[in-house]
Amino acid sequence: MRILIEDVNILIDDKIVENKNILIENDIIKQISDSKSFERIDYIIDGKNKIALPGLVNTHTHLAMTLFRGFADDLPLEEWLEEKIWPQEAKLTADDVYWGSLLGICEMIRGGTIAFSDMYFFMDEMAKAVAESGIKASLSVGMIGIAGDENETLNRGVSFAKNWHNAEDGRIRVMLGPHAPYTCPPSFLEKVIDKAIEMSLGIHTHLSETYLEVENIKNMYGLTPIRLMDRVGLFNVPVLAAHCVFVDDEEIEILSEKGVGVAHNPQSNLKLASGVAPVKKMLEKGVKVGLGTDGPASNNNLDMWEEIRLVATLHKGVERDPICVPARDALIMATKNGMEILGFENSGIIKEGYKADLILVDVNKPHFYPRHNLVSHLVYSASSSDVDTVIVDGRILMEKRELKTLDEEKIMYEAEKRAFELIKKS
Amino acid sequence: MRILIEDVNILIDDKIVENKNILIENDIIKQISDSKSFERIDYIIDGKNKIALPGLVNTHTHLAMTLFRGFADDLPLEEWLEEKIWPQEAKLTADDVYWGSLLGICEMIRGGTIAFSDMYFFMDEMAKAVAESGIKASLSVGMIGIAGDENETLNRGVSFAKNWHNAEDGRIRVMLGPHAPYTCPPSFLEKVIDKAIEMSLGIHTHLSETYLEVENIKNMYGLTPIRLMDRVGLFNVPVLAAHCVFVDDEEIEILSEKGVGVAHNPQSNLKLASGVAPVKKMLEKGVKVGLGTDGPASNNNLDMWEEIRLVATLHKGVERDPICVPARDALIMATKNGMEILGFENSGIIKEGYKADLILVDVNKPHFYPRHNLVSHLVYSASSSDVDTVIVDGRILMEKRELKTLDEEKIMYEAEKRAFELIKKS
Ligand SMILES: [Zn+2]
Ligand SMILES: [Zn+2]
Repeated sequence: MRILIEDVNILIDDKIVENKNILIENDIIKQISDSKSFERIDYIIDGKNKIALPGLVNTHTHLAMTLFRGFADDLPLEEWLEEKIWPQEAKLTADDVYWGSLLGICEMIRGGTIAFSDMYFFMDEMAKAVAESGIKASLSVGMIGIAGDENETLNRGVSFAKNWHNAEDGRIRVMLGPHAPYTCPPSFLEKVIDKAIEMSLGIHTHLSETYLEVENIKNMYGLTPIRLMDRVGLFNVPVLAAHCVFVDDEEIEILSEKGVGVAHNPQSNLKLASGVAPVKKMLEKGVKVGLGTDGPASNNNLDMWEEIRLVATLHKGVERDPICVPARDALIMATKNGMEILGFENSGIIKEGYKADLILVDVNKPHFYPRHNLVSHLVYSASSSDVDTVIVDGRILMEKRELKTLDEEKIMYEAEKRAFELIKKS
Repeated sequence: MRILIEDVNILIDDKIVENKNILIENDIIKQISDSKSFERIDYIIDGKNKIALPGLVNTHTHLAMTLFRGFADDLPLEEWLEEKIWPQEAKLTADDVYWGSLLGICEMIRGGTIAFSDMYFFMDEMAKAVAESGIKASLSVGMIGIAGDENETLNRGVSFAKNWHNAEDGRIRVMLGPHAPYTCPPSFLEKVIDKAIEMSLGIHTHLSETYLEVENIKNMYGLTPIRLMDRVGLFNVPVLAAHCVFVDDEEIEILSEKGVGVAHNPQSNLKLASGVAPVKKMLEKGVKVGLGTDGPASNNNLDMWEEIRLVATLHKGVERDPICVPARDALIMATKNGMEILGFENSGIIKEGYKADLILVDVNKPHFYPRHNLVSHLVYSASSSDVDTVIVDGRILMEKRELKTLDEEKIMYEAEKRAFELIKKS
């Protein structure tokens, strides 16, 4: 299969390179060229008035929580979690997770997200949804290590990895997913780390999301969560750490030295009243920061453009520094850094020989005019609905805003039906 | 002209009332009914899977700055203003303002904004653009009172008011627009206030946007900007005060007691590194808060849905209070409060006898499913491109995302051409 994208502007590094032609052969960007005279082209996409850029990467979500979107907003945090979300989650079936995941994938593809990282239950069903849709994902079984059945929990995570890691020609990857320091004691974490080393897997976890968490961990172990994880040896394997809102300068140094990938979820951190992560300092210290939405019950959508705009504006305002997190950094976090944190190689930038993982953004709209600086416009003015075309591993998942691999009407219907039934169940 | 919107869900107060029919007669909402059997209907709009809500109100912008969108981002504030924006603004012609305003109006209508408040130069041209487009506006000539030609400046503002206040059947209103305390000394402001009282006009000004401004005013006058304005008598007329980022508790009391309308511009305040206004306290004290984008050079779009989502999340995060600024408050700020602050009567809510100023949002999209709570979804999940139809004074300005009163392609072309030429001029 050879696809030619004609007459397109391409985001390369932090510049827009104008009027090029991109030849895709199977899953690879074969050539980026001034000429469009190629032979044996199976399919042509008109790139005029569009920008090709690497697809967006959502480094932290809980996709099936689409089912709880808007179910319980504007509540105190404990009431939200303990009285609303957890009781509902306890009723979830594998089938619910399947349809909730498909709903989330529809939304992500529509917004130009081509890869995501997730930690939840019934992950076989989520993996099936990922396989069917054509999107990329790094998936983890969320593991709670305080339930008394530690070994069974770990085995579930491990056998999921055996079944799905590098499945679908490498489109699905797996990490082990110990939920958080406050739900996984050091003894359990040590077992998880051993398994991760043995199986060459990464680890996806939540770290230092709230002030209360940090206080509790300090009271229990005499160390902050990051220091505790460092002591336990977590950072000896590749780690994706979600949130890192409450981290001090020394902890930022640890995250940097150990090459930890941080999933920064600015909108969820605001909506849940957690706070604002010190991203300016993280970037100064060379921490690899990606962006995420967190679950749709705390965001309430899967729109990465909102996170891009928020990371590029929030820290300027909170740090009172108008030049921190410039547009190019926000885009790198949402693309290249994300792919690296998820462990996908040869992706995250548009380059010959790399995976054909890219999106086309239609810039022939009032909010992109005048076109003084399209990199700025992508960050400060674009939105999800400007994404026209989505290509993953050379396969077209959306074209002219029409989904090609999923039956959206059916998915919206099935997901909503299950969500309503779930809440009715006592 | 009688328009019937059939089978539509309506946002009334903070509830969605399902499956109603809205009869519009000329510029008025004539009837909201369970039945659709009306006679002499000229035009039918299908409201299925849509929410009718009051159109959004942008309480503070500088519309023609669309021409500088993305021209100078990620720079220190002084360099941005003094080396980039001001020198360009000095070259602006009336014609530039006309096309820049039309470009901004296209974008606003597309996002469901039906009224805005603006302060800029060449306001006759902006008023012409407003007249042609069908949108509502409260317009002010921006007045600098330190140039030595105070009387001429004031006369320009006054004669603009004489020409345009209540023009277009009341669709255009005018306020006097002294720019800010640091550009308008008390002696000038007193003249402006006298004129406002004499002509029964409101006043639109910038107040306490930056920390530096507050320090400078304190050094010059021994009072903070709000206290200085109170002393000068500004609040004896209806005032629209943009920003109010740095205000203490006593100043919030003054804003509340004097009924000052505050235009809160959360995204501009973040991007320009001004800070975060104490909106939680303002709401607790009963201050009338509206939302605004500020000019497109500091935002960089005119998207009110971003401001709605930001006001409902930012303050939760910064105050660490997950229940402050709930969804319903964010919607009221963006609709009813906005219309009241701009001085438009019988608008801002959907009610029989009120102006037919409303928009239809298409909720048949993945990010609105499951439909647990459509009020939540409007605030935490919707975006500009979900707006399907825009009606102002009973006139359809957009239907099925097609603009009805403006030639968008021509406007994008003309505005961009002028923006590029402007920057080339030495
Ligand atoms: Zn999470
Ligand atoms: Zn302003």
